[in-house]
Amino acid sequence: AHLYNAAEEQETTVNAKPADLSGYTRVRQKLVAPPFAPEHEQVATGGPKIVEIALETEERLLVVDEDNGGEIWALTYNGSVPGPLIIVHEGDMVELTLRNPASSMLEHNIDFHASTGALGGGGLTHVFPGEEVVLRWKATKPGCFTYHCAPGGDMIPYHVTHGMNGAIMVLPRDGLKDKDGNPLRYDRIAYFGEQDFYLPKDENGDYRTYEYAGDDYADSLDAMRTLIPTHLVFNGSVGALTGDNAIKAKVGETVLMVHNQANRDSRPHLIGGHGSYVWESSFTDPPMRNMETWFVRGGSAVAAMYTFEQPGVYAYVNHNLIEGIMLGAAAHIKVEGTWDNALMEQVVAPHSFET
Amino acid sequence: AHLYNAAEEQETTVNAKPADLSGYTRVRQKLVAPPFAPEHEQVATGGPKIVEIALETEERLLVVDEDNGGEIWALTYNGSVPGPLIIVHEGDMVELTLRNPASSMLEHNIDFHASTGALGGGGLTHVFPGEEVVLRWKATKPGCFTYHCAPGGDMIPYHVTHGMNGAIMVLPRDGLKDKDGNPLRYDRIAYFGEQDFYLPKDENGDYRTYEYAGDDYADSLDAMRTLIPTHLVFNGSVGALTGDNAIKAKVGETVLMVHNQANRDSRPHLIGGHGSYVWESSFTDPPMRNMETWFVRGGSAVAAMYTFEQPGVYAYVNHNLIEGIMLGAAAHIKVEGTWDNALMEQVVAPHSFET
Amino acid sequence: AHLYNAAEEQETTVNAKPADLSGYTRVRQKLVAPPFAPEHEQVATGGPKIVEIALETEERLLVVDEDNGGEIWALTYNGSVPGPLIIVHEGDMVELTLRNPASSMLEHNIDFHASTGALGGGGLTHVFPGEEVVLRWKATKPGCFTYHCAPGGDMIPYHVTHGMNGAIMVLPRDGLKDKDGNPLRYDRIAYFGEQDFYLPKDENGDYRTYEYAGDDYADSLDAMRTLIPTHLVFNGSVGALTGDNAIKAKVGETVLMVHNQANRDSRPHLIGGHGSYVWESSFTDPPMRNMETWFVRGGSAVAAMYTFEQPGVYAYVNHNLIEGIMLGAAAHIKVEGTWDNALMEQVVAPHSFET
Ligand SMILES: [Cu+2]
Ligand SMILES: [Cu+2]
Ligand SMILES: [Cu+2]
Ligand SMILES: [Cu+2]
Ligand SMILES: [Cu+2]
Ligand SMILES: [Cu+2]
Ligand SMILES: [Mg+2]
Ligand SMILES: [Mg+2]
Ligand SMILES: [Mg+2]
Ligand SMILES: [Mg+2]
Ligand SMILES: [Mg+2]
Ligand SMILES: [Mg+2]
Ligand SMILES: [Mg+2]
Ligand SMILES: [Mg+2]
Ligand SMILES: [Mg+2]
Repeated sequence: AHLYNAAEEQETTVNAKPADLSGYTRVRQKLVAPPFAPEHEQVATGGPKIVEIALETEERLLVVDEDNGGEIWALTYNGSVPGPLIIVHEGDMVELTLRNPASSMLEHNIDFHASTGALGGGGLTHVFPGEEVVLRWKATKPGCFTYHCAPGGDMIPYHVTHGMNGAIMVLPRDGLKDKDGNPLRYDRIAYFGEQDFYLPKDENGDYRTYEYAGDDYADSLDAMRTLIPTHLVFNGSVGALTGDNAIKAKVGETVLMVHNQANRDSRPHLIGGHGSYVWESSFTDPPMRNMETWFVRGGSAVAAMYTFEQPGVYAYVNHNLIEGIMLGAAAHIKVEGTWDNALMEQVVAPHSFET
Repeated sequence: AHLYNAAEEQETTVNAKPADLSGYTRVRQKLVAPPFAPEHEQVATGGPKIVEIALETEERLLVVDEDNGGEIWALTYNGSVPGPLIIVHEGDMVELTLRNPASSMLEHNIDFHASTGALGGGGLTHVFPGEEVVLRWKATKPGCFTYHCAPGGDMIPYHVTHGMNGAIMVLPRDGLKDKDGNPLRYDRIAYFGEQDFYLPKDENGDYRTYEYAGDDYADSLDAMRTLIPTHLVFNGSVGALTGDNAIKAKVGETVLMVHNQANRDSRPHLIGGHGSYVWESSFTDPPMRNMETWFVRGGSAVAAMYTFEQPGVYAYVNHNLIEGIMLGAAAHIKVEGTWDNALMEQVVAPHSFET
Repeated sequence: AHLYNAAEEQETTVNAKPADLSGYTRVRQKLVAPPFAPEHEQVATGGPKIVEIALETEERLLVVDEDNGGEIWALTYNGSVPGPLIIVHEGDMVELTLRNPASSMLEHNIDFHASTGALGGGGLTHVFPGEEVVLRWKATKPGCFTYHCAPGGDMIPYHVTHGMNGAIMVLPRDGLKDKDGNPLRYDRIAYFGEQDFYLPKDENGDYRTYEYAGDDYADSLDAMRTLIPTHLVFNGSVGALTGDNAIKAKVGETVLMVHNQANRDSRPHLIGGHGSYVWESSFTDPPMRNMETWFVRGGSAVAAMYTFEQPGVYAYVNHNLIEGIMLGAAAHIKVEGTWDNALMEQVVAPHSFET
């Protein structure tokens, strides 16, 4: 009862003046599944927009790690973990329709870190199964921001650690810039949602299975209280972005890596590459430069930019290597192009030596 | 014996020249209990001061979570967890009288991260029950800084994780500024001490109770070695700053949130608001801007500034939501004022839809 | 099979143009054991260099904590944990000969975070016992960077958490600078490798012993999966840099503290001093100022500069004090000189007071 409970803290918004929406044009953003980004302009053309977004909550059984039997009744936005990446510009309005299908077991809502007031919208968007709500808010601060479900009390970490989170990127109207104001442009976005799962085990150490979403609630809280995830994955499951599912790029291309971690600190690293420009705070601040490993404060989304200089397979990992390699937070970026011996050369291949 | 032991490492300070105290005026700072701040000037008037501070160690039984029986023989400065916020200006001297009452069970001292030499004063301030000491040091670096007890060896983490820590804010003489040198002023300070407790449990999983301060020493070290706190709280107990104990503010007011975490990393987030200006390092550096979630390097105090734009209840949390919601690191800020639909509006309230 | 496996991802480097090495002069860097730094120029004289480096892998039984029986078959570069500090300038080439003696049990390689392509060189440097390889790469980004073994799959965190990591510092050709471009020079370097060990225990809670390197593989993975280290140490063992092994300095001297943590976040703090200039990201960014505690993103090396103002013993610790004091991440810096009462003075020594 002492604890923060979003559901109890709704705002009194009666008697407020109506918003003046003249000057805004209305567009609809077609969301796509991660690791991809919706079509968007890097530099905004025209005036501010009302960007219509549709999210539907979906509770689905997700195999987290097919090798060890880990599965979870994931709570999602639009069926993916993370939820889809939303992209708008500073000064735009986001107009979200949030729908919870009648087939759901649970109540959901949404808290946008990018927004202002009402618990980030969490206090105004509670939808029970069969309900929908429409929320409009202004993107006043440029940066990458987490959004997540926050239905109240212990349900908040429960929903967030069951996959119910994603990111919105609020670009400056004139696009990204370096510290001197020079434009920074990218060829593609790679959107990584890092998810910490805390899967309950039985007395034999095997992962428990459950019949319906929500059935794992009490067991999950016990597992969460250890603060030690059983799995840490990109895009919902171990290997979701490796091998045949690798992200693709070419030498000379610039990739903006957007990383969302809604709950737990992370430290992304691009094996073989760098974070040439890294925005850990917001796009208001100049990017940090030439980082080997950057930081995601748990409950944040960040962006890092890199231009590939060599071909090959890069691994994008949480560089606590136990977390990245053993718990699953690793993705691949496969880069085509011509090798540059001026940057690196195997001068003498491995061979036996006389001792 | 290998390990760092503050008690063994006292400085040889004999033969040192006396300090020249001409030009300083002497004032006494009346400390107040958290989450409040002592009366102070944001911009210093007059020359440097010797600011007299009185701290008394107090060992007291503290109920950490009345719902689950968690209690601890807290070790405190002036009876509160965290210890009181001290505020001075760069160039001032802090003159501390540290008193340990005869009724205490334990030796205490104090290490000021803001100070220079003698283990932050820890080597010069060991007081046994019934003793007092006077230490004077110059605040040469502007910023928020942790202070804490550090009696030596494993007693250091033991005292720190029993509540014996707080913060001092060393303001620039001309006050806080943005990166361009424009003044930044606040209407109030909210001072959050986040405490990680590691409460020992018995074989049934119930929290153990102890008769005297210090009796939990061996059990506590075992619990601490897991690195997993049983409780993470603001101002000493779960719910100490929520509900009726919420901090109060008004739309248009600017609040400086000072966050102390003497031991363990934290990632503060203001649900529904932002860190518009965040000083993670010191006041020498320009503040970071528009952060959704900022970072407290374990063993640090930081400051974040926000001007409220909407009424309602905001939750200030450690945004590892397991830590913030389930372990207790959540506070409320209750903001009065008029809702602004231009920033956020519930366009259509939750309602059933046809499927 | 889903997981990132460096060994499977070698680059196709055939058909690449030969590198143009005209204009480089060739030097050999004599590496030294930590906590010391190799001879080097702070400001580069002459043009870019090819810096020849020799590393030999060594698997050796290491006593981590003589007090509690903790020992490990450490995997090392040149026998020390961390591996030796390498120092070059931006624009230099590093030409590494990596040799794995025939007596080894395991395959090794090396991933330089400072390099570009081929998994940081990891894909081009796999050496089995009895093999050697030569890799050359260009240091294009200034900063402190981790290097580490990354033989593939779970062997990556296994080798890294068995000590197989170190740091390279890539200095700007014209040396370190403050934000205004003023030179920053140091009198000495203190090189700290913080190592998280996860030592397996038997059913009695005693540390297990093993006959050969690699024998602890399965047990170690189980221990690592808890994410809770049993030991956190500087330079390979508890107390390796304390007491008689303390680093030495003088009042007025400036020390550059280089901290490598290849796997796990850390938060260094100099008890009694500060990080006056801290480079958490790279030397491309201006240093952060006057930090009480700074941050090492797990999988990073950072640098912090401090000019000592007071004599005495300083402790350099990971300021999660459980980790720093109880798990072992503490070192001493012993500073000689004259005490300055203007900075700190014990005005009244501890004494009994009337109650
Ligand atoms: Cu939900
Ligand atoms: Cu949140
Ligand atoms: Cu104490
Ligand atoms: Cu400290
Ligand atoms: Cu190796
Ligand atoms: Cu690495
Ligand atoms: Mg705002
Ligand atoms: Mg962000
Ligand atoms: Mg595996
Ligand atoms: Mg100083
Ligand atoms: Mg601070
Ligand atoms: Mg509870
Ligand atoms: Mg490069
Ligand atoms: Mg680095
Ligand atoms: Mg010990």
